[in-house]
Amino acid sequence: MTPAARSILVLHGPNLGLLGTREPEKYGTTTLADIDVSLAGLAAELDVRVECHQSNHEGELVELIHQARGVHDGLVINLAAYTHTSVAIRDALAAVDLPFVEVHLTNVHAREPFRHHSMVAALAQGIVQGFGADSYLLGLRGMVKWLSR
Amino acid sequence: MTPAARSILVLHGPNLGLLGTREPEKYGTTTLADIDVSLAGLAAELDVRVECHQSNHEGELVELIHQARGVHDGLVINLAAYTHTSVAIRDALAAVDLPFVEVHLTNVHAREPFRHHSMVAALAQGIVQGFGADSYLLGLRGMVKWLSR
Amino acid sequence: MTPAARSILVLHGPNLGLLGTREPEKYGTTTLADIDVSLAGLAAELDVRVECHQSNHEGELVELIHQARGVHDGLVINLAAYTHTSVAIRDALAAVDLPFVEVHLTNVHAREPFRHHSMVAALAQGIVQGFGADSYLLGLRGMVKWLSR
Amino acid sequence: MTPAARSILVLHGPNLGLLGTREPEKYGTTTLADIDVSLAGLAAELDVRVECHQSNHEGELVELIHQARGVHDGLVINLAAYTHTSVAIRDALAAVDLPFVEVHLTNVHAREPFRHHSMVAALAQGIVQGFGADSYLLGLRGMVKWLSR
Amino acid sequence: MTPAARSILVLHGPNLGLLGTREPEKYGTTTLADIDVSLAGLAAELDVRVECHQSNHEGELVELIHQARGVHDGLVINLAAYTHTSVAIRDALAAVDLPFVEVHLTNVHAREPFRHHSMVAALAQGIVQGFGADSYLLGLRGMVKWLSR
Amino acid sequence: MTPAARSILVLHGPNLGLLGTREPEKYGTTTLADIDVSLAGLAAELDVRVECHQSNHEGELVELIHQARGVHDGLVINLAAYTHTSVAIRDALAAVDLPFVEVHLTNVHAREPFRHHSMVAALAQGIVQGFGADSYLLGLRGMVKWLSR
Amino acid sequence: MTPAARSILVLHGPNLGLLGTREPEKYGTTTLADIDVSLAGLAAELDVRVECHQSNHEGELVELIHQARGVHDGLVINLAAYTHTSVAIRDALAAVDLPFVEVHLTNVHAREPFRHHSMVAALAQGIVQGFGADSYLLGLRGMVKWLSR
Amino acid sequence: MTPAARSILVLHGPNLGLLGTREPEKYGTTTLADIDVSLAGLAAELDVRVECHQSNHEGELVELIHQARGVHDGLVINLAAYTHTSVAIRDALAAVDLPFVEVHLTNVHAREPFRHHSMVAALAQGIVQGFGADSYLLGLRGMVKWLSR
Amino acid sequence: MTPAARSILVLHGPNLGLLGTREPEKYGTTTLADIDVSLAGLAAELDVRVECHQSNHEGELVELIHQARGVHDGLVINLAAYTHTSVAIRDALAAVDLPFVEVHLTNVHAREPFRHHSMVAALAQGIVQGFGADSYLLGLRGMVKWLSR
Amino acid sequence: MTPAARSILVLHGPNLGLLGTREPEKYGTTTLADIDVSLAGLAAELDVRVECHQSNHEGELVELIHQARGVHDGLVINLAAYTHTSVAIRDALAAVDLPFVEVHLTNVHAREPFRHHSMVAALAQGIVQGFGADSYLLGLRGMVKWLSR
Amino acid sequence: MTPAARSILVLHGPNLGLLGTREPEKYGTTTLADIDVSLAGLAAELDVRVECHQSNHEGELVELIHQARGVHDGLVINLAAYTHTSVAIRDALAAVDLPFVEVHLTNVHAREPFRHHSMVAALAQGIVQGFGADSYLLGLRGMVKWLSR
Amino acid sequence: MTPAARSILVLHGPNLGLLGTREPEKYGTTTLADIDVSLAGLAAELDVRVECHQSNHEGELVELIHQARGVHDGLVINLAAYTHTSVAIRDALAAVDLPFVEVHLTNVHAREPFRHHSMVAALAQGIVQGFGADSYLLGLRGMVKWLSR
Repeated sequence: MTPAARSILVLHGPNLGLLGTREPEKYGTTTLADIDVSLAGLAAELDVRVECHQSNHEGELVELIHQARGVHDGLVINLAAYTHTSVAIRDALAAVDLPFVEVHLTNVHAREPFRHHSMVAALAQGIVQGFGADSYLLGLRGMVKWLSR
Repeated sequence: MTPAARSILVLHGPNLGLLGTREPEKYGTTTLADIDVSLAGLAAELDVRVECHQSNHEGELVELIHQARGVHDGLVINLAAYTHTSVAIRDALAAVDLPFVEVHLTNVHAREPFRHHSMVAALAQGIVQGFGADSYLLGLRGMVKWLSR
Repeated sequence: MTPAARSILVLHGPNLGLLGTREPEKYGTTTLADIDVSLAGLAAELDVRVECHQSNHEGELVELIHQARGVHDGLVINLAAYTHTSVAIRDALAAVDLPFVEVHLTNVHAREPFRHHSMVAALAQGIVQGFGADSYLLGLRGMVKWLSR
Repeated sequence: MTPAARSILVLHGPNLGLLGTREPEKYGTTTLADIDVSLAGLAAELDVRVECHQSNHEGELVELIHQARGVHDGLVINLAAYTHTSVAIRDALAAVDLPFVEVHLTNVHAREPFRHHSMVAALAQGIVQGFGADSYLLGLRGMVKWLSR
Repeated sequence: MTPAARSILVLHGPNLGLLGTREPEKYGTTTLADIDVSLAGLAAELDVRVECHQSNHEGELVELIHQARGVHDGLVINLAAYTHTSVAIRDALAAVDLPFVEVHLTNVHAREPFRHHSMVAALAQGIVQGFGADSYLLGLRGMVKWLSR
Repeated sequence: MTPAARSILVLHGPNLGLLGTREPEKYGTTTLADIDVSLAGLAAELDVRVECHQSNHEGELVELIHQARGVHDGLVINLAAYTHTSVAIRDALAAVDLPFVEVHLTNVHAREPFRHHSMVAALAQGIVQGFGADSYLLGLRGMVKWLSR
Repeated sequence: MTPAARSILVLHGPNLGLLGTREPEKYGTTTLADIDVSLAGLAAELDVRVECHQSNHEGELVELIHQARGVHDGLVINLAAYTHTSVAIRDALAAVDLPFVEVHLTNVHAREPFRHHSMVAALAQGIVQGFGADSYLLGLRGMVKWLSR
Repeated sequence: MTPAARSILVLHGPNLGLLGTREPEKYGTTTLADIDVSLAGLAAELDVRVECHQSNHEGELVELIHQARGVHDGLVINLAAYTHTSVAIRDALAAVDLPFVEVHLTNVHAREPFRHHSMVAALAQGIVQGFGADSYLLGLRGMVKWLSR
Repeated sequence: MTPAARSILVLHGPNLGLLGTREPEKYGTTTLADIDVSLAGLAAELDVRVECHQSNHEGELVELIHQARGVHDGLVINLAAYTHTSVAIRDALAAVDLPFVEVHLTNVHAREPFRHHSMVAALAQGIVQGFGADSYLLGLRGMVKWLSR
Repeated sequence: MTPAARSILVLHGPNLGLLGTREPEKYGTTTLADIDVSLAGLAAELDVRVECHQSNHEGELVELIHQARGVHDGLVINLAAYTHTSVAIRDALAAVDLPFVEVHLTNVHAREPFRHHSMVAALAQGIVQGFGADSYLLGLRGMVKWLSR
Repeated sequence: MTPAARSILVLHGPNLGLLGTREPEKYGTTTLADIDVSLAGLAAELDVRVECHQSNHEGELVELIHQARGVHDGLVINLAAYTHTSVAIRDALAAVDLPFVEVHLTNVHAREPFRHHSMVAALAQGIVQGFGADSYLLGLRGMVKWLSR
Repeated sequence: MTPAARSILVLHGPNLGLLGTREPEKYGTTTLADIDVSLAGLAAELDVRVECHQSNHEGELVELIHQARGVHDGLVINLAAYTHTSVAIRDALAAVDLPFVEVHLTNVHAREPFRHHSMVAALAQGIVQGFGADSYLLGLRGMVKWLSR
């Protein structure tokens, strides 16, 4: 990887740390660590850097987004439950003005109605959902392609 | 108490630490410590263990629920304000897949409309509300009975 | 039981006479008579009297509530279907001005949306739901505790 | 009174039998018997007959309305709680095709939102509300005037 | 009439000046002058004074209500179209703090949905509608009875 | 008819006893007795038994449905006004777990909006409406065909 | 069949050509050809003619309805998905002014909410649903009876 | 490519034939032919076959989906305007029971509210939107990965 | 112009007096006087009379409409802001029972949602909007054509 | 007409081919051919060309709009039923970026609520409705005036 | 004060003339004249001119706003009841294109729901509410600061 | 400053730490430190103390409010995104029962609809918005004036 490679921040929202152990019929047995390894592998292939963080705290996610300014070129985010409720994270994304891709493991439109609305979708560069862990990989590809236009 | 006694995690949500000093005409003068003592007393009578925590932080409540897996057999929770807004706590409860009872000090249906909807009610084993501190005690009885079926 | 014991009227609403034979996967095999026996047992333990009635008729429930004035000290009611539709029963409860606890065998928030709203909840002293037949017993405990404050 | 005098059926709906004893701050101390006496007095003055019935049963009110056909010339009805919920009574009123006046002791628009809608208002000849027992007397006057046009 | 007789202000809202010529199938052929004469006759019978005004201007109606303070003991108002739209008249009625009766010639619940809501109904002493010109007379009776309690 | 013939309970809801005399432009001049005769005739032709009841009382309809268990093989029901308001009858139908066909004389979708929703439709085997008295006959045919699958 | 026999046009809407192969747990294994054969058989029995067409194209269904004028005496239509979305077909049915019966294989009220509303129901002579292929046969009977009044 | 390669049907909905010439500030200058070439390239890379069709006709899209049964293993679809209105296409997708990915050139959540709802999303395997022509490529990757699980 | 020429009243609602100076990017630089001159010109061409008035007062517009009875044969009205809020003007138009055309300078459906609803549209003979000052001219043509049918 | 004359495409939507024979009380006896002749006459007078097409097919209307690019200078469209449902036609109109006038024979605001919303109104240059066949002629005048600004 | 001082128009809406005498528990005993004196005092301190007007007439307020053009530099307005209903005043404010501050004596969000929406808020430079008469003074300070940026 | 000076707690909610660098076209270049300095200056002028805190964490804001009891006399709060979502902060404010002023840099009514509702507005002493950093200063003045009444 060259020093000048682009850098992507991957954020995992609340409860995703349980991945692989939580409701496996919905989310499968892949753990969050597995996903981060896959992302690192694809990043290498695409010649970019990725940095991954998980947090269950809305305020912490707000601050991780703030810290991305000047450090990362874009974000791939799975806000999980905060997708549907957090104006604070929406404002953080608008404030740092970095392109981001919204990803979801499941197809949220096939779940409860309160999951059909995303507070951040209108600001996203693109959205990928329903492919399980592959949603992250497709989202990373999309983000990198967008950055290289 | 026998070593094999069941264990129940009691969670108190935001602002409940002020209990006994806050809006006494609505909540009375019983403090949260008083409630925890009553719960311990009833637990002894019912031959179970209880562990009690209070937090004002949504993310911390999410993590307390995560930590209950493999440690506790059920939960009695008063999520207070987060009852009405937190998808993250709902997802945590679904993820750990432990039975829980939702309790409220007041009858939320006699209060403002935005308190009439609970994000977690649909997943609860049972719900008890309106009995002041006794809501916790009735909820604990209900949880224990359910576990012993 | 002392002559001065408090008296609680327990009302069972429409279709509850079928209990134990109706949709057992939702309501179990306990019959209404079983519940009345359990209530009598707990009443003896708590040193109160209970009187139980079932009716499928909204108007009859209205009149049973009227007759409670001057006879009973409180009510434990499971209005079943009329919970969601009866303004007449709400008015009857308001008119006799006796404290009452609303109980449900199931957790109504885990069922159809039209069961999420109760016409009488805002007037109830407390609400217990989702514990099967134990909802009545917990409700009776709650009512008695409230009366002895 | 001449034999040919018009006849008006007055119907009192659920809980009105408690009048004078129920929530006196809303409904005053006048009993239903007092109202029937006042109505009889005004009827004599207006040279009409009145017949008054109270029922807590929706089905009974339906049947009282059916029986008015060929017997009475119009109705003055206070359906109380059934005002807001009964399609059956609405259909009965439409079926017998007699003019009727809807009356309420209180001003229902100054009360809970679920009392703002009346299932029968659209079919009424006229509506009088908010004057306490006088609502019936004004309603009777209105009905008689309408019949004598 | 004695000098101490109570005084009632009658207000007629927009378009009522056309009465008797406008949509006679809905409003009949009685003119507004006819109604004012009838009101004067009934006032004499009831030993009160009435003063009647009509205006098509919302602001003028506001000011007529202001001027009633200290002059009249109550109002009988038919706000016509402004019933459904005027917060200003509602505020005027609240400000002068005089009892008033809301009247309508027609039964507004039998007309278009936008006529079903009244901005002032919640503040009215009583409401009479659907009796044509008699609505005013019944409303005056109701107002006078209320004042003499 | 053979002793083993299937048996169908036909229930007529509130106000249907007036049929043939009520709003004939909507319902025609056929009486309920006429319909019962036609149903008996068709039943004979289809080699089944029918039993018909009418009631204006919600609670009575609930109990007629309860009594069908073990006696009848299915129901053809015209709940009239209770179609739109009765959770109690819905619960009764669910409790006895017998197949039923919902019928209406008129096409309810061509009438007032509050008639467009049926509390029981989601549980029905089939629905027939708009054919006048023939709705019952078509409903009976449908029920019998369904039972003989 | 006599030359003067009435003629009924049967229209099958989008996706119905797959019948018997599509989601058999919902629609069974009967094919559309089977239904057309059954309809022809019943038509012979009832001494009417039937002509059946299927189309997946909204515009084509509009034109098939246009062509029915002067050719057919009524229609039996299963618009399938277009039931819920097509104003154009509604307008076509209103324009040709022929009586029609709306039929559905399934009970649409037991399915997704967006299937609960029909754009054409308010114009239908009658509606039959939930009986599988028998819905067509019952609908044809209803149509023929209606025509022979 | 081996004969046994999987085959994916790509469907382009209404107006997409204008791509590259239509509202270029929203959709760019890439033509539909360019996209089909890119898809063919990626298909070769992923060792699958793709077949692409565009249609402006809802009925034609229904039939193209029908014809995919037994021919293709999955679909990548951009239904454009029909996304928001077509129950018929939803039913076609459900009927053929093939996995499909929904793609959109733009992020529909950043556009007019009527584009926020998709009639088919709840049935999709996955959804990709907002990446311009890359949405198709990411969707194809996702479909192929899903098929190879 | 012949003495028997038809007469049309043109009414301009609130704020239209500022035309030509107000938000010219939306309304252009044509003044209201310019429009009146154009209308006079077209009236001469069509052999009718026009009379034009502007008012910012709802009550005054009501009265101008009243005065049109017996004087004018029809109206062309641009109620501007009162279009969306005035029941009083709607009632005035219904009361005088003259045909009228509703016109708007702009296409109100391309503006804020609260401008999409017109209180008077349902009563209008026709509606013309979006053509700037030409909306009036087209409206006048339409009104005259309608009168000469 | 000069070779350089502007050209206007007139599109007639579904069911308009029946004009003159369909619901004459709503649409009169003028046929579509009559309207096209009138349009040709007015076009000659205004020195423009018009070309008229009718289609019952949404997809065909989409394609007729596509083909207008580079051929016509503007459109006058009466989408009939598709006005209320077609996002595809809206997208086609946006894609070709030609000015258009929306016309309707009737005043849609005086009809069923589902006709009050137009999918294309927000994009139209102007709207004319309620003048019968004259709506087209007024719309053509408006379009031509707009083009000559 | 220098001749070049900025000038602010203060407008008081309907019923505010009663201030100090009207509902003193909500609005206190300060009169409108008192407020105008305070405003003049603060204006002197801030070296600006203020001119104050009160009107109960929507049309008059529209015209006062029109007259502010070229005379005043900004407005401080308390529209009282018209805040919630007047599109005409909103249009006047947009038309004159002067900056304005919206003020309210009370906190409208603590009052009836129909007071929570303001027709003009979206156009305001700033909003101040809930401070009683001080709302005007704070609003004037805010306006002056804004003008001096 | 005297020892007895009143003390005001100023709270800044999520993302406000970025002020001056975030979306400057909306929020300007003033930093949060600048605002705190201005507040300190005004506090000195008004002879009160101010203490300022910023937090991105809902739970931390809850606790800062708790700690204000017995320490501060009032609050000036800009909850930013939590304004619209936090019941927990609302409950904290109600619990400590201190007067507070709600401030916003921007006019939230001129922004997205989800920003129009505030969870805490109904409890506020007053509200100031739209004046940029001056909103805080005006809010502080308002709070101090209110405390000195």
